[in-house]
Amino acid sequence: MKNSYSPWLLATMLLAMPHLLPAQEALRFQAAGSGPQVNSDSTVTLSVHAPNAKTVEVSGFGATPLAMRKDAASGDWTVTTPTLRPDLYTYSFNIDSVRTIDPANAYIARDINALFSEVIVPGGNADLYAVQDVPHGTVSKVWYDSPTLGMKRRMTVYTPAGYEESGEKRYPVFYLLHGSGGDEEAWSQLGRAVQILDNLIASGQAEPMILVMPNGNANLAAAPGETSAGMYEPKGEHSRAEEGKFESSFKDIIGYVDSHYRTIADKEHRAIAGLSMGGGHALRTSLMMPDTFDYVGIFSGAARWNGGAPSADNQEFVAALRRQFADAPQLYWIGIGKDDFLYDLNQGYRSILDTLSIPYEYHESDGGHIWSNWRDYLVIFAPRLFRNA
Amino acid sequence: MKNSYSPWLLATMLLAMPHLLPAQEALRFQAAGSGPQVNSDSTVTLSVHAPNAKTVEVSGFGATPLAMRKDAASGDWTVTTPTLRPDLYTYSFNIDSVRTIDPANAYIARDINALFSEVIVPGGNADLYAVQDVPHGTVSKVWYDSPTLGMKRRMTVYTPAGYEESGEKRYPVFYLLHGSGGDEEAWSQLGRAVQILDNLIASGQAEPMILVMPNGNANLAAAPGETSAGMYEPKGEHSRAEEGKFESSFKDIIGYVDSHYRTIADKEHRAIAGLSMGGGHALRTSLMMPDTFDYVGIFSGAARWNGGAPSADNQEFVAALRRQFADAPQLYWIGIGKDDFLYDLNQGYRSILDTLSIPYEYHESDGGHIWSNWRDYLVIFAPRLFRNA
Repeated sequence: MKNSYSPWLLATMLLAMPHLLPAQEALRFQAAGSGPQVNSDSTVTLSVHAPNAKTVEVSGFGATPLAMRKDAASGDWTVTTPTLRPDLYTYSFNIDSVRTIDPANAYIARDINALFSEVIVPGGNADLYAVQDVPHGTVSKVWYDSPTLGMKRRMTVYTPAGYEESGEKRYPVFYLLHGSGGDEEAWSQLGRAVQILDNLIASGQAEPMILVMPNGNANLAAAPGETSAGMYEPKGEHSRAEEGKFESSFKDIIGYVDSHYRTIADKEHRAIAGLSMGGGHALRTSLMMPDTFDYVGIFSGAARWNGGAPSADNQEFVAALRRQFADAPQLYWIGIGKDDFLYDLNQGYRSILDTLSIPYEYHESDGGHIWSNWRDYLVIFAPRLFRNA
Repeated sequence: MKNSYSPWLLATMLLAMPHLLPAQEALRFQAAGSGPQVNSDSTVTLSVHAPNAKTVEVSGFGATPLAMRKDAASGDWTVTTPTLRPDLYTYSFNIDSVRTIDPANAYIARDINALFSEVIVPGGNADLYAVQDVPHGTVSKVWYDSPTLGMKRRMTVYTPAGYEESGEKRYPVFYLLHGSGGDEEAWSQLGRAVQILDNLIASGQAEPMILVMPNGNANLAAAPGETSAGMYEPKGEHSRAEEGKFESSFKDIIGYVDSHYRTIADKEHRAIAGLSMGGGHALRTSLMMPDTFDYVGIFSGAARWNGGAPSADNQEFVAALRRQFADAPQLYWIGIGKDDFLYDLNQGYRSILDTLSIPYEYHESDGGHIWSNWRDYLVIFAPRLFRNA
């Protein structure tokens, strides 16, 4: 329709009631429910308007889903969680066997091929996951050339607040790697690495540093939706380990970073860490490039070598370790949860290090192979970097 | 549990079956349905597994929702749309009165406070919205200081492919503004501006340029979730027009861009355009800074002045227009849809320009106040920029 109001009347209406300006698209996603309410006792109240549903439950707050209860009059289903430890929680509803995000919560994160609604229960480390009133770094998606892998590849680069205005000042670099099924978005989304670094740097708990989060899948150029492969469904199997291939291309990443950013391009000012598959990448990349990283973090790591558990009987592996530790890294840090399915693999790796009298630090947490642990590990690890440099 | 497999067995399993490596989070969002299937006849087949639902429909493909039909045996609901024109479509399901995204489609976009699933029907301009095998620019989220508004503010900056490697080469700048309720994410998400620029530049249809997408809400520093205000629900009313305030701060944006990027810092190499509220911003900013922009685009613009429809009787407004057009912009472009609720307002503005014999180009499209039009307008407008410079 052509509008039947006079321009003057319309403009007056818009001036008086700017909220009447329409949404940017005619379509609206009707919020059903009020979104997650974080209560002062560290519980969260969830709600969803589903007047015709027979059963509604919410997953993400504990080992089993929580049943929600219906108010017959309103058609709203609600539940309040038990007391929760401070953290970023990802959750989904199950409404009559359909799993969905919270339709009243605009905040979501993708984990591989799954979307979750998000809510932060404040306190403790979780306050580092929230955006605070501190100077913020710049986050860029850049495409670097990898001659080794024969493609241009996408990565996420964080430069700390003040980088652009700091003239000739040069910075150390922390390379942070995702796990199987993940991509260059993982650490900045579910890992909250940008907020963690912003907050730790602002409070002086971490050195200002460049944070580089590449895509660790040697056969994929970028996160799903970011290549001409289009909007395929991301799956774990896309993360074929292809052990050694990504590691051997790491020089392309370092080369790009050192030539495009004001880095301090030496071992003393380089760190590498990763989770799960990325922990294996950190282990092997630092082993294959023994003069390159002075800080190594293995978070719930796939601590493998040549596709298997490393062994103290493997001469090649032991020789490589001895080369790496001839000039030992300032920090070689292993973190894993008691319930992690890679727990025994990591204990096996530790026993090799112990046998060889190789120094490392070990952190054992509760829980399993979960982002909650990896965020915690980053909060422990990042403040240790570049302090002696 | 501690894992009961031996490390060797576990590692062997993981090597042989890397897809068994667990998701990064124990929680999984079970895909229900197969995601949108784009058919060769430009229809789209949607499906969702909802065995207990009574009615399921999908919104986003046409003026009214499409009813989906249940296969009793599988519990899957499906529908195939009519033939669609090539475009990016945003859609949602309504399952027994609960609106939700497609649980089997990992691709979503936020429009103000609403989440939509996305699918691209290829062909025509829609091929510019898809990621193609072309060189990609860098997309950064930067925080600039706005002394005028008294805060640090976030914006999205695109530098074209090759920018980093182009030595001392300097580039023109295109400032692109969102509408009411939107933010610095809008044009790079629903607007597909990054893909459009990558593709147009790669084919030589547009000049390599820097694209700057600031936050046009004078009272908000950044998109929801990106400030210490946390994960509040974004609403249109947060976009108070506060006419003139954002415009008067535009010098802060230009100052940042000219001092942080290799720009050509003159009128001949600056463009400004915006949609809806942002169209009003483009109109007024270019009017208030008459020697600053040689290209102006008003897309479905809120073509207001002092809070009302501009009038040829308003001496101040007419004088400002005459100042701006004393050295007329190379291109002053107005685009609007026949069904847009701002149609009459724009015709009123055109009649003033006609009365004053001010040159401009006018593009009238079908449809209303929708992203589909704004993407189209960008595809028309961007190739016109900096050709005479």
